[in-house]
Amino acid sequence: MAERLVVVGGDAAGMSAASVARRRDPDLEIVAFERGPYTSYSACGIPYYVSGLFDDSDRLISRSPDEFRDSGIDVYTRCEVTGIDLAARTLEVWDTDRRRSRVEGFDKLVYATGAEAVTGDFPGAELTEPVRTIDAAERFRSALEREHAHTAVIIGAGYIGIEMAEALVQRGLDVTIVEARDQVMATIDPDVAAHVQDAAESLGIRVMLSTTVDAVLHDDQDRPCAVHTSGGELQADHVVISVGVKPVTAVAAAAGLELGERGALKVDDHQRCPGFEGVWAAGDCVESWHRILERPLNVQLGTHANKQGRIAGTNATGGDLAFPGVIGTAVSKLCRYEVARTGMSEKEAEWVGREVVVATVKDRTRAGYYPGSGPIWVKLTAERSSGRLLGGQIVGVEGAAKRIDVLATAIWAGMTVDELELLDLSYAPPFSGVYDPVLTAARRTAKAVKQAAKAAA
Amino acid sequence: MAERLVVVGGDAAGMSAASVARRRDPDLEIVAFERGPYTSYSACGIPYYVSGLFDDSDRLISRSPDEFRDSGIDVYTRCEVTGIDLAARTLEVWDTDRRRSRVEGFDKLVYATGAEAVTGDFPGAELTEPVRTIDAAERFRSALEREHAHTAVIIGAGYIGIEMAEALVQRGLDVTIVEARDQVMATIDPDVAAHVQDAAESLGIRVMLSTTVDAVLHDDQDRPCAVHTSGGELQADHVVISVGVKPVTAVAAAAGLELGERGALKVDDHQRCPGFEGVWAAGDCVESWHRILERPLNVQLGTHANKQGRIAGTNATGGDLAFPGVIGTAVSKLCRYEVARTGMSEKEAEWVGREVVVATVKDRTRAGYYPGSGPIWVKLTAERSSGRLLGGQIVGVEGAAKRIDVLATAIWAGMTVDELELLDLSYAPPFSGVYDPVLTAARRTAKAVKQAAKAAA
Repeated sequence: MAERLVVVGGDAAGMSAASVARRRDPDLEIVAFERGPYTSYSACGIPYYVSGLFDDSDRLISRSPDEFRDSGIDVYTRCEVTGIDLAARTLEVWDTDRRRSRVEGFDKLVYATGAEAVTGDFPGAELTEPVRTIDAAERFRSALEREHAHTAVIIGAGYIGIEMAEALVQRGLDVTIVEARDQVMATIDPDVAAHVQDAAESLGIRVMLSTTVDAVLHDDQDRPCAVHTSGGELQADHVVISVGVKPVTAVAAAAGLELGERGALKVDDHQRCPGFEGVWAAGDCVESWHRILERPLNVQLGTHANKQGRIAGTNATGGDLAFPGVIGTAVSKLCRYEVARTGMSEKEAEWVGREVVVATVKDRTRAGYYPGSGPIWVKLTAERSSGRLLGGQIVGVEGAAKRIDVLATAIWAGMTVDELELLDLSYAPPFSGVYDPVLTAARRTAKAVKQAAKAAA
Repeated sequence: MAERLVVVGGDAAGMSAASVARRRDPDLEIVAFERGPYTSYSACGIPYYVSGLFDDSDRLISRSPDEFRDSGIDVYTRCEVTGIDLAARTLEVWDTDRRRSRVEGFDKLVYATGAEAVTGDFPGAELTEPVRTIDAAERFRSALEREHAHTAVIIGAGYIGIEMAEALVQRGLDVTIVEARDQVMATIDPDVAAHVQDAAESLGIRVMLSTTVDAVLHDDQDRPCAVHTSGGELQADHVVISVGVKPVTAVAAAAGLELGERGALKVDDHQRCPGFEGVWAAGDCVESWHRILERPLNVQLGTHANKQGRIAGTNATGGDLAFPGVIGTAVSKLCRYEVARTGMSEKEAEWVGREVVVATVKDRTRAGYYPGSGPIWVKLTAERSSGRLLGGQIVGVEGAAKRIDVLATAIWAGMTVDELELLDLSYAPPFSGVYDPVLTAARRTAKAVKQAAKAAA
């Protein structure tokens, strides 16, 4: 009898694993259970659907359950795995449509249940529906179109909050972002975040920092109408809670799989769950090794989910592929502005106790005479003792996103800022000045490293 | 008495050297001689001035002679160095305005005379004025504006030819590019160049390959009127000859400085001219070490000129800075399209006898559902035995230019395509699919490396 691989979770990581396993082993039986109605959809695309950039929500789906079935993967949607017996090699599956539970066996297991939104613990939060799935996005968008809403309050100024702010501003709403911290985008340093806040405010978005939410008020039809905050009451025809996401790991934990500090599944570099043969995990529900912070973190990003899923699926079919870890590269867009980061920020350096020097440059995105140029800020973090590049943060118009990848590559390769400064990067007037802002920042940082060495001597 | 540093050539390399020397040594006397009327201007910006993207040609000047004088550098424009006696430490300088020659002494010398256009050896070429200087660009632009020209023929389909084609198409001219080779842009592989040709043709530019020019015909007022080619006669109200540039080294050679195979000055990694104490050279007139081809080449680019000038100026004032070499990174724009290359192309691999594998992917610049996405082609070259990334070529809309820098950084760092494939590059729907085209190309190339190894075993 053929071996049976069961994949728990039908999104990026799970279906990447299933697909690569299918290609590598034609004899294997492959079954995937997904609690929602969709497979492999782009949650990252939801803000752009909400904004009205495109109308057909199906375009968020990269492969449908039927397409997977056609390629020989048995996909069961609206089927939630509610229990796992790792010793008996069985799963309990709740079939939402048939309203009944069944038991399924497996030989190998890939656990890829993703993450879910944290809703906040203030009164009224429980009435706010998470906009993480396509059907929820459709409901949110029709509400926006139907109700001639004027005001929206976004609670939480992280990536999702910023992207949702863009979406709602583009729909013509009056948008206020309420953030409990004293800066937007907690993953970047405060001085860099200030430029993002400026950009948001220049788009007409009101940003309230150091402001906590006491309650979201609803009318008698359970529609939001106001948000009570420490900074006063805000009218709100719509409320988006974007205070974070958390890994979905309750079933895995109950089955005995090991969790890290932040509640994500521990895995080794082959995506194996330690202590259990034939069990892999991948994507938003696992810990990923951060190569620069030198500790495991739970990072939710489609690109890691895809790669880890592919690695899990490869290794589940006799392969030997290692995930090399992450360095915290992330990027987001706020209308004309791009915000990007990679590696270790100044505050992360403080957190892990690493001695660093930092430098920031403000530059232009094109040659001075070339029209359409805009401002760009580049902040670098370098190891104080060696000058090794550890991190980069970029805010600016055009090209900030792709420039972060240059820094990510240099960090990955262990380059020093000295070396980066003289790197042969491309130059043409429409794309940068003679020195790309990245090189100018490297030069400034190299100087700061030398000054720090002198001061220490 | 103060030591005297003389800089020959007042553009990017020379004035970078002068500026850094000024900052480092307040006592040094610094004199620069420039044969033209300008200092530190952007020759790379000329096509954009010609196109009409901006009107004030002064914006091409990053620092004027007076600005340099204010910072304590004696700049003499329209003064051409016509002879150098390295033993006597003297120069002969021809003052164009005063129509007389004088002798100047020096203790240290930075030679940075740049490059000049090659005009071609067909009849009529001698009447075509090179558009390398600001005054020539002004004359060309007023001719374009005055004469209601309809047709232009561009001879040579390299970077400058392509950029001039963009400029003239944007001015509404009917543009034909005539190229003697069987592809446009000789610095990229023919299969990649085909996409550039497609892009040019989609803009209405006629591209004639494998076509030689027999003569440029002029009317009785010495204005061009037609081009005789091996493919027939072309009407031409304007003719641009862009068949290449060559280093300006006659005076240096006569003085005994050593030239390489292609007529550029030999320098060591400190920009010193071998065999002579206290003599440095930098910029378009020197050879640069190509780290991947492992040979010296004459590369003309403002970014190298700036860096090498800075290094020469640092070392001329007691510093110890090495130029790490180039890897042939270059980028250009053709309306919406971007063309970029770095490292070793497939045909360069053949030229230097390196065993490589190549792979090309066609991808999209954004997530499938995100509007405004366009095609992008990425071709990689990897060492056959090791999988080490050696080269990259990208043609596409938006983001091709900055993506080449990721490849340049990876090549510089000696990464393999395997390593590149799993690199933590940024992802968000407006900027790429879940796998950036660069990662997809790395994956395809890694597969090709494995297949080549299998085939060899």
